[in-house]
Formats: sequence, C-alpha cells, structure tokens
Amino acid sequence: MSEPDAPRVVSLEGSLAAFEGLWQPRIVGELNGQHVKVAKLRGEFVWHRHVDADELFLVLRGVLRIELRERALTLRAGEMVIIPRGVEHRPVADEEVHVLLFEPAGTLNTGDAGGPRTVREPERL
Amino acid sequence: MSEPDAPRVVSLEGSLAAFEGLWQPRIVGELNGQHVKVAKLRGEFVWHRHVDADELFLVLRGVLRIELRERALTLRAGEMVIIPRGVEHRPVADEEVHVLLFEPAGTLNTGDAGGPRTVREPERL
Repeated sequence: MSEPDAPRVVSLEGSLAAFEGLWQPRIVGELNGQHVKVAKLRGEFVWHRHVDADELFLVLRGVLRIELRERALTLRAGEMVIIPRGVEHRPVADEEVHVLLFEPAGTLNTGDAGGPRTVREPERL
Repeated sequence: MSEPDAPRVVSLEGSLAAFEGLWQPRIVGELNGQHVKVAKLRGEFVWHRHVDADELFLVLRGVLRIELRERALTLRAGEMVIIPRGVEHRPVADEEVHVLLFEPAGTLNTGDAGGPRTVREPERL
C-alpha cells in the first residue's frame, strides 16, 4: 500500500465536473484498501457481479435503477444501497446520474462480465 | 462475518431523522469489513487518532471543521476527507452537522483517547 497523502478536502461535485465520460469511474479517495469513486451513468450497463467485492452505490444526483434478477431498486439523491458480492446487478439510468461508489481497490466496473466497457485502471482525480 | 442482508435502499436523511444523539454514530451499512455510519455532530469532540483505521468523513449537511495538529480543514456539504490512520484529529462543529463515515467495522469513535464519549457498540439503523 502506498503512503497516504496528507488529508485534503475533496468536493464530490467538483470532482464530477472535472470529467465527461459515462461509465468511467474516477478514484477520489483510498482508505483501508477500499476505493472511493465517483461516476456518471446514463443508459444501461452490462449485467455483472463482483465475486469478491461488496459494492456501495450512493446517488448524488438523479435517479438510478439497479436491476437485480428478481426485482429492481430505485435510488434517488441521498439514497444508497450495498450490493453484496456474488449478486448479479445492472445499473440503468434514463437520465444522467452521479454516484459515489465504495468498493475494494481493484474492483472492476464490469465485474465478472468483462468486455469493452471495462475500465482497468480508473483515473485518479 | 454475518450473511449479508438482501440489498435495501437506505435514505441517509431518513436515517439521520431516526435518532437524536450527538456524537453517537449509527451503522447504516456494512461491506467488505467496513462500516458505513451516519452521525450528528455539534460542539467539540476529543482529540484522538485511530491506530489501525483510515477514516472518511463526508459532510451531508452543515459545516464541519476537522482540526489537525498543524492546521484545520473545513468541509461543507458534498465535501469529504480521509484522515489516515495514526493522524490526530478533532472534529468541531459550531452548528449541528450531519456526516457519513466510512471506516473498518469496530472502529471506536474516540480512537485511542477513550473516555466517556466512547460508543462501544453503535446501534444499527
């Protein structure tokens, strides 16, 4: 693990304003082997699961639907959900959504599904 | 580790509305051995550090000052900071502040300082 940086205040809104790409999470913090990321989502993502990682979604702006195999969850700003490891899910957003993600460092956005939308090394902001 | 619950949507504002106590974090989620907590802060807390835990503060409402030994950080709603393990800090809030915390399960609010303000087993919401 690298040496931690000196504590710095991070604006989530400012971080989200610093990039454009959809479905391309950016790392805004690291602690205890976990990454804090922000992402902009719109449209349908791929079905996937994370075999070894629980994943937290906290919606900062907009409305996010997370489809599970048996039902769907709807999250609005200020709402969060934890998708346990192994649970298949698919994020969907009719309009652009801004989210904060919390998951182990190295977790791939596409989980076990892989494919062209995989971001192997998210940028750090 | 206990079996994860089925995914459920958690409203941070709703969670904060469900209790009154200051400096008494409530657990609203658990993932990868980490706890997600919410807390209401007002006044001055004790100086402390967490020997084995990095700690994230995300301000949801109000203004939080985190005093370090050499300087102080000011966080407003939508801003976060990670206090690395071992770094002494003291949260201070002139008016009531609502925060979200990420830290390893079992992290004590008073860290190495202990004392009467220690919450040994935070309630789960």
